[in-house]
Order: sequence, then C-alpha cells, then structure tokens
Amino acid sequence: MKINGKHFHTIWVSPDDKSVVQTIDQRWLPHKFVVEDLTTVHEAAVAIKDMHVRGAPLIGVTAAYGMYLAGLSAAKETTDHFLKIIDEAAELLRSSRPTAVNLFWALDRQTTGIRSIDANVEEMIQFLLNTAADIAAEELESCRLIGEYGVDIIEQMSKAKSGDTVNILTHCNAGWLACVDYGTATSPIYLAHDQGIKVHVWVDETRPRNQGARLTAWELGQHGVPHTIVADNVGGHLMQHDMVDLVITGTDRTLYTGDVANKIGTYLKALAANDNNVPFYVALPSSTFDWNHTDGVSQIPIEQRDESEVKSISGMNEGEIRSVLLTPPESSAANFAFDVTPARLVTGLITERGICDANKNSVLELFPEKVDLVK
Amino acid sequence: MKINGKHFHTIWVSPDDKSVVQTIDQRWLPHKFVVEDLTTVHEAAVAIKDMHVRGAPLIGVTAAYGMYLAGLSAAKETTDHFLKIIDEAAELLRSSRPTAVNLFWALDRQTTGIRSIDANVEEMIQFLLNTAADIAAEELESCRLIGEYGVDIIEQMSKAKSGDTVNILTHCNAGWLACVDYGTATSPIYLAHDQGIKVHVWVDETRPRNQGARLTAWELGQHGVPHTIVADNVGGHLMQHDMVDLVITGTDRTLYTGDVANKIGTYLKALAANDNNVPFYVALPSSTFDWNHTDGVSQIPIEQRDESEVKSISGMNEGEIRSVLLTPPESSAANFAFDVTPARLVTGLITERGICDANKNSVLELFPEKVDLVK
Repeated sequence: MKINGKHFHTIWVSPDDKSVVQTIDQRWLPHKFVVEDLTTVHEAAVAIKDMHVRGAPLIGVTAAYGMYLAGLSAAKETTDHFLKIIDEAAELLRSSRPTAVNLFWALDRQTTGIRSIDANVEEMIQFLLNTAADIAAEELESCRLIGEYGVDIIEQMSKAKSGDTVNILTHCNAGWLACVDYGTATSPIYLAHDQGIKVHVWVDETRPRNQGARLTAWELGQHGVPHTIVADNVGGHLMQHDMVDLVITGTDRTLYTGDVANKIGTYLKALAANDNNVPFYVALPSSTFDWNHTDGVSQIPIEQRDESEVKSISGMNEGEIRSVLLTPPESSAANFAFDVTPARLVTGLITERGICDANKNSVLELFPEKVDLVK
Repeated sequence: MKINGKHFHTIWVSPDDKSVVQTIDQRWLPHKFVVEDLTTVHEAAVAIKDMHVRGAPLIGVTAAYGMYLAGLSAAKETTDHFLKIIDEAAELLRSSRPTAVNLFWALDRQTTGIRSIDANVEEMIQFLLNTAADIAAEELESCRLIGEYGVDIIEQMSKAKSGDTVNILTHCNAGWLACVDYGTATSPIYLAHDQGIKVHVWVDETRPRNQGARLTAWELGQHGVPHTIVADNVGGHLMQHDMVDLVITGTDRTLYTGDVANKIGTYLKALAANDNNVPFYVALPSSTFDWNHTDGVSQIPIEQRDESEVKSISGMNEGEIRSVLLTPPESSAANFAFDVTPARLVTGLITERGICDANKNSVLELFPEKVDLVK
C-alpha cells in the first residue's frame, strides 16, 4: 500500500546490497517513518521479539529472511557446520515470540527444505533467500485473495443498507503493516473502499501497545479510508446502538477446529458481537492455521510481556517521542498479549481459498490436503 | 481512607474558612496530591465537568456543596433574587455531567428543600450547607454499609477456596476517591482486607482516562491491598483461566429494573463474566438509583467527551507531568464515557440496605417506599 503516495512493502531485500534485509521499524509509527537494516539473524530475532515488526504473516516472513541472514554469515563454513548454524538460528528465532504460528511454519519450511535439496553451501544460501522471497510472495497473494473473497461480505451489507456506509470494527493491526501488503482483516476493507463502496472503520486502540491507534489508524489514513479511533472499551456500546455492521479481525493462530488466538481483547469483542447479532469474521492466510491442536483456551500458549508496556506509554510531546509513566510506580501490572476466541463466537473465516465456517468440517472442505494430518 | 497514613475524605469545608470547600483534584493522581479550593459555584461546576472530582456519589456531594457556595455569593440579595440565583446555580451544575444520576438527585434535594422551609436568606444558606453535609454523611454511611453487606460475598468465596486468595476484578474507580470515604465497589474489598481475608484485585486500566490505573491502583496501594493493573482487554482472558472469582463495579446510574450504566467497557466485562460463570456484582448507594426509566440502553443518555482524551494521555516523564499524542494527528477519535449493562448480566446489586437481584421486584423489596413512585 502507499505511504505519502509511494508504494511500499513491509519487508524487502535492499536493492543496493543483497546481504541487507530492510523493514519498517513500526515502533516509531505514526510519529516517524523509520526503515531498519537487518544484517544478522540476531537483528532479525530482536526485530521480532521487540516488535519492530509484528503481525503473524510478517513475523513468519521476517523469520524466513532471518534464516537467510544466518546462512550468509556461515558462507565459509563446511556443509555440516553450516547446517548446525542454521539449526541454531532456527532455535533463536523460534524463541522470539511464542504465539504466532506462522513463525514456526516458516522456520520449518526453511530447515526442512534445506535438507531436501542436494546442494553446496552457496546453493543452500540461495535456497534460503528464494524460500523467504517465495513465502513473502505467497503471503502477499494470500492477502490479495482474502480481499477478493471478503469484499463480497461488505458489498452485500452495502446493498442491504441501500448504499449507506458499512461500519466495520477491527481490533489491533491486521493491516498491511502486519503482512507484506494489503493486510488480512483490512484487505477486504481496502478493496471495498477502492471499489467505491462506502466504508467506515472503528479502530480499537488496542492497549497496551496501541497497534490500532498507532498503526491501523495511520495506514487507513494514508490510504484515505474513513476511520475513527475508539478506546477498547467502546465496541460493546457501539454494537448495542447499531453502529457496527461487521467485525473483522486478524489472528495469530487459528486452530482447524475454529478457535482463534488473536490480540488480547478480541474475545471481548466477539462476545459483544454475539450478544448483538453482529457478524464476527476472522481473516487469515492458511499459514496461520494450527493443524496440531484442538482446544484453543487450554492448548495455545499465551505470551506474557513485560509490565512496563502497561505501566508506561510513548507518544509525541513537543516534537519528541517520550515515554510517560501512567500508574503509581509501586503498582504491578500483568501483560497477557493474546486471548482465545472460542469457535462458537466466530461467524466465519476468510482465507485465500474462500470463506468457511469456524469448525473442523468446514475448514477441511477448503483444505482437503490436511484431512489425513488431523485424523 | 488513608493517604500516607493520614485519614482523608474526598471533600470537606475548610476548617480555617467556612466559605471555602476543599477537594482532592484527582487529575494529578497518582503523580501529585493536590488539594483544590472551591470558592464559587462556577469552580464547583468546572471541578465536576473537567473531572477534578468524579464518581457518582462524589459528583452529587460536590454539586450539593456547589449550591452552598452559590448561596454564599448571594448572601446580600433579597429572598426572591436569592432563589433565582440558586435556581440558576442548579441549572449550571445540572449541565456539567449528563449521566450520573446522583447529581440531579442532590440538586433537587437542595432546590426543593430550600423552598420547604420558612427562612430568611441567612438561614437558607445554612440550610444549603447543612444539606450538603448531610448528603456527604449519608453517602459515607451508605458506603460503609455496602462494605458490611458485600464483605459476606467475599468471605463465603474465601471459605469455599479454603482461605486461598479471592481474586476480584474491578473497572474504573468506584473507590473512596469516587465517594466521600470507603468507596462503593471497593468498600467490601477494604473491609475484607482489614478483616484478614486474603484478597487480590485485578485493576482494569479504564481507558481513556485511566481511572483504574491512576486512582484505584493508587488508593489500593495506599491501603496495602494487593493488586495488579491490567489493560481493559485482559479481563476475558483472566476469566477464561479461572483467575477471577468475582467482579464488582460501581455505577453512575442504575435503573430500578436492574440496567446498569457505568464507565464505558463495563458491559464487555459483564459479558465475559456471564460467559465464564463469574458472579458480577454492582455496588451502589440508593442515591444512584433512577426510578424514572425502565430501559437502560435506549433511555440513559451517554455522555460523549472530547476526542483529545483518547488521542493524548498524560503521565510522568523526567519528573514532570507531560501529555503525549498517541495517534496520527489527523485521525479522529470518538469518546463515549459510559455504557449500559443489561440487568440479565448482573448477578446482584449491593446497596446500603442489603443485596438484591437486578430486577424490579427484588429492588422494590429493599426500597418499598418507591413502589408507588414507579407504578
């Protein structure tokens, strides 16, 4: 999508130096637009862990490129030693964030793939680069297709309202900044807007890291999509008063049984949607599906982050980005990063293969190649 | 309750000057403890409107003292002119906040009362002062009794858990800072803690004005009650994982039919409590009951405040209180201050007369003198 009129992806190999991967350091948005150079796997791991990059699809792509950077650093090693370094790199990246399943999927694809080819070190490095680029291209195409399928839902609502504005609530940032381009939850919204369908987005602030107020509001604004920021507390009230036609969120991990792990607070919005008969959709590329677990609340590990993210917050003051303490210094805070929305509260899943219900049978109809895997 | 070991109320007449009402200017907490002098009805109205004082009971008491200050300013007027000035003062105060019903109740008590006595201007001023002091004393006693009734619920849970810690979630500040002393939602908690029952409070941050993170955390900390601050998004996850035994909130207006208006986001916590079989109680003095309306969602006016409260936030930075911008400057924000929790989601109401179910019959059993009023 565009930033000040110029088209960007969220991650790319530097056109000037093939050994440098470049990303947008999202910690500074919306106040500053900073491009970060990643030159080692350690820098890639820090970028994921400290959330310079975030969003399940982008975490996966960044990890894939991190594997390439690890390969580059071991270019002069023997094949055996090279493979050992690659495995260590995968371990390092694997420990950076525990909830996003795309991370593990991308790492497995690199470590399994590299062993499946008969190649020397130089060729293995090229394989790691190609695979990272493939994953990026696939995520981009998945997001584009999610938009194609999802826009039908918005279009039908627009028709049912005789062309009146369709009000969509979203939580966190499942926008193009969370992916490579288009976004997951936002992809149908951008497409609807570009097609001239009247849309307005209620942007949940998304405490504690404010990905909604910082990132979703910024990217919607850059693209010209009408939107209003609200505190996370507001969505229920809006739904009670018919001010929300549709909820669309992304997800960090969705079980094939339909349970959805997403940014903390998603469950509360799903409850409110259910209580007010508002459709609640989750948009995801197939890389975000977890085919190994069946019960979200008991089985998905929920990352706990540092209390400082709750107790303090950064923003712009007199031209500088400053962090302010919000609480009594001696009070403790807990910082659970995700929650699980049970399948029973999810109206449907919007994937690159189409829309399905949030249950095993419906998911497997779209992904028949997984039937044997989940038996 | 105590601040640094010294006992305080939230509002009082200055011991040095009977024409000055003093309050704690809560906008600076927890960073600074500031006592504000109110000397005119205009200052009282600003203190309510701009939330130097907040919380339904304290708003009512402040308005009552505001009427006394208006009376003082008109001490040399004729009786007719005095009454006109008093009515104008009531109008001014009435427009300061639209949702808290205690405000209207306190103003009506002053304006009706003053006309029911046969008195000169000087005596009427004394009446306004006495009535304000009476209201303050009654609110204090109501809060104390709410604690006496509510502590039974906590005590039973403690016994059921064989003395293990009872985890209580609360939203916003329905603490002593919202009242004159003790608080409403916190009164049973303070009493339980003082009686040696192990309690721990999950303190909802309560965006956008962070009354939980700023005020509830501070007052619980001052009194030594174990607590943990969480983003408003977290409560559902905590309840899914059996980390909440009980929710207690305050209310700005509760209909006799059981619908509860309270700080925005309360409805979402009530939904989560309902979905996880966690008891959800609302604590209130009888002055917070609305005997005139029957349907909360359609009939209670919901205050909308300035978007700046969502887009910016204040906190401590390098020893100074600074405001930081959290959003893109060009994005809009909406700021609904309250929402309505339907009676069906409320386990019970804790009042100064005892605990009742959130429905007309049960409420009227506790308040039989209202039966004719609501026919």
